[in-house]
Amino acid sequence: MFDNKERTNIEELGEFGLINYLTKNIKLVQKSTIKGVGDDAAVLDFGGKKTLVSTDMLLEGIHFDLAYTPLKHLGYKAIQVNLSDIYAMNGTASQVTVSIGISSKFPLEAVEELYEGIYLACDKYNVDLVGGDTSSSKQGLVISVTSIGYADEKDIVYRNGAEEGDLICVSGDLGGAYTGLQLLEREKLIYLENPNIQPDLEGKDYIIERQLKPEARRDIVDLLKEIEVKPTAMIDISDGLASELLHICKQSDKGCNLYEEKIPLDPMTFDTAREFNLDPTVCALSGGEDYELLFTVKQTDYDKIKFKMDITIIGYITEPSAGCNLVTKGGVVHALTAQGWNAFTPPAG
Amino acid sequence: MFDNKERTNIEELGEFGLINYLTKNIKLVQKSTIKGVGDDAAVLDFGGKKTLVSTDMLLEGIHFDLAYTPLKHLGYKAIQVNLSDIYAMNGTASQVTVSIGISSKFPLEAVEELYEGIYLACDKYNVDLVGGDTSSSKQGLVISVTSIGYADEKDIVYRNGAEEGDLICVSGDLGGAYTGLQLLEREKLIYLENPNIQPDLEGKDYIIERQLKPEARRDIVDLLKEIEVKPTAMIDISDGLASELLHICKQSDKGCNLYEEKIPLDPMTFDTAREFNLDPTVCALSGGEDYELLFTVKQTDYDKIKFKMDITIIGYITEPSAGCNLVTKGGVVHALTAQGWNAFTPPAG
Repeated sequence: MFDNKERTNIEELGEFGLINYLTKNIKLVQKSTIKGVGDDAAVLDFGGKKTLVSTDMLLEGIHFDLAYTPLKHLGYKAIQVNLSDIYAMNGTASQVTVSIGISSKFPLEAVEELYEGIYLACDKYNVDLVGGDTSSSKQGLVISVTSIGYADEKDIVYRNGAEEGDLICVSGDLGGAYTGLQLLEREKLIYLENPNIQPDLEGKDYIIERQLKPEARRDIVDLLKEIEVKPTAMIDISDGLASELLHICKQSDKGCNLYEEKIPLDPMTFDTAREFNLDPTVCALSGGEDYELLFTVKQTDYDKIKFKMDITIIGYITEPSAGCNLVTKGGVVHALTAQGWNAFTPPAG
Repeated sequence: MFDNKERTNIEELGEFGLINYLTKNIKLVQKSTIKGVGDDAAVLDFGGKKTLVSTDMLLEGIHFDLAYTPLKHLGYKAIQVNLSDIYAMNGTASQVTVSIGISSKFPLEAVEELYEGIYLACDKYNVDLVGGDTSSSKQGLVISVTSIGYADEKDIVYRNGAEEGDLICVSGDLGGAYTGLQLLEREKLIYLENPNIQPDLEGKDYIIERQLKPEARRDIVDLLKEIEVKPTAMIDISDGLASELLHICKQSDKGCNLYEEKIPLDPMTFDTAREFNLDPTVCALSGGEDYELLFTVKQTDYDKIKFKMDITIIGYITEPSAGCNLVTKGGVVHALTAQGWNAFTPPAG
C-alpha cells in the first residue's frame, strides 16, 4: 500500500494534532455550510428544503481487506457508499462527517492516504466534510460516515411508492463488484502461498474498479431531473438486486416480475463469473456493492427512458398477491429470494 | 452483565432481521422528523432554523471496558456524549443516527440491552433515532453516533466568541467521571486476581454514575435561555477542563486566568482522588468525560448567574498576550496545559 520509508507516529501528533493535520486543507463549497469542522457541531442551513441524513460503518475484516484495498480507494469508497443513499432519495448530497478508529501503530502517511481518497470523493461530488471524530482503535480500522443532503419535499423518492404496472429500472450494470471481489480474493490467496507471484489482474480493470472504487450515481439523479421523470420508488443497490427489489416490494406492499434476460451485465462480469464457476445472474442478484440505483417509474414515462443508455428496464411491479418473481431466460418462474450479502456471514469469509 | 440463559444468535436474524428487531418500537416525537429509519436516508425538516450535526465514535478497549460497563449504560452514554455537543452549541438536539459493529457471537439479548440504554436516552432527551447501520465486527464492539439538532441563527454559540473580561463559567462539578473510572479499574484488577471478591463500590454511586451514565446538560441550555444569558463561547467538557478552556482561548484568540480554588469538586471526587494519591484539581483539569458545559459570559450578565446553584464562575478571559494561566490556591501562577485524556494514549490503558 505504502512503503515504509516515511512513518510518522500518530501518537506524537495526538488527537487534536491529527485532526488539525487531516482537516487543514478543507475548503467549504456548499452555501448551506455555515460552520464546518472545529466546533462541537457543524452548522448547516437548508432554508426551506428538507434535510436528508444517512450513515454507514465500514469495518476492517468485514467490509474491506487491507491486503488488497489501497487506502485511498477505501476512503473514496467510504464516501461513495454514503452519498449513494442520499441519491437514492433523489436528493443532493451536501455534507459528510467522517469518524475513524485507527491503530496508533498506523503511520500518519497511511491515514493521509485514506483521507486523500475521502477528499477526492468529496471534491468530485461537491460535498463538504464538516465534522468527525478520530480515535485510537485496538481493533483494526473502523470508518463511519454520515452524509447529509437536501431535496425539495416534492422531489423526495421513498422506497414505498411503487404502484402496480410501474416499470422496474436499474442504472449501469450489475454483479461487477462481486466478481471483482472474487478476483481480488483469489490473487490474495495465491500471494499468501507464494509472495513472489505478482497478482494477475491484467485486463480486469473494470470489475476491480467496481469493487474498489465505486461511483455513486448522482448522474442518474441529474438525468432523471433533466428528462422530468420522478421515480415512484428508489433504492441503491448495496446488498444485491434481489434484496433491494424485495425491499421496494415489501415497503410498497406490491409484487414484481423480474426478467433474468434483462438484467444488465458487463461482458467482463459475465466471463469472470464463469471463470469462477459462478452463475452471472446470481452475481447480479446477490453480489451487492454495485451502488447502482434501482427504481420504479410509471408506464407513462416509458418513452422518456427507453433510449437512455445507462438505464435498463428489467421488469414490472404487480399486485402483492402475485408475489415477487424471477422469470428465467428459459421462461421458468421462481420466487425471488434475497441471498444477498449478509453483514453477519460475509461471502468473502 | 447479563446471564447466559437467554442467548439468541444474531446470525439467525441476519442484518435486516436485527435492524427490524432493534427499531420496531421507535416512536418519532420530533415534528422535524419527516421520515426516520427504513429508507436510504432519514428526512428532516427544520424550516428556517439552522441545522447542527455532530458525531462521535466509541470503541471497545479505548472508550469503554465491558468488564465493568453495563451495556445499557453504554448505550445511554453513547447518546449523551453526542447530545452534549449539540447543547454545547446552545442548540436543541432532535435526532440521532446510531451505527454499531458487533461480534456475531454477541447474543441478541446483549444488543437489546445496549439499545435499551440508547432508547432510554433518546426518550429522556426527546430525541428521535432516525437511522443507522448494523454490522458484524471482528474487532469488538464499535458504536458510532451522529446527532442532529437545530437552533435559531442568533442563538448559536461557537467556541470562538470569548472577549476580554468575560467570565468563565462551568456547570456542575468536575473530575467525578475520572475518579469513578479509577475506582472501576481498581475493582476490575481485584476481581481479575480473585473472582470471589465482590466489587467494593459502596457509597460511591455518584462518581460511578458520573463515569458510566453521564447526563448531557440540556437543563443548562434551558436555564441560560430562561435567564436570558447568551454565552459568548461554549464547549462541552469531554477531554478535561484545561483542554477545553485552551480550545476556547485558542479559537477566540484570547488568554485566561483560571482559579484553582473556584473549580467545583464534589466531596466524593475529592476524597476518592486522595485515596488514589491523585491531586483532585488535576482530576478536574485533565480527567475528562464530565460532559459539563464550559462557557464564557459578559460581565454584565454576572447578576443573572451569580446565584445559580449549578453554575460556577471559575475565572475570566484576558488579552491573548497574558497567556492561559492557572492561579493555584497558594496564589502561584502556572501556564495552563492540556494533559487531558488523549485518545491515543488512554489513561485507563
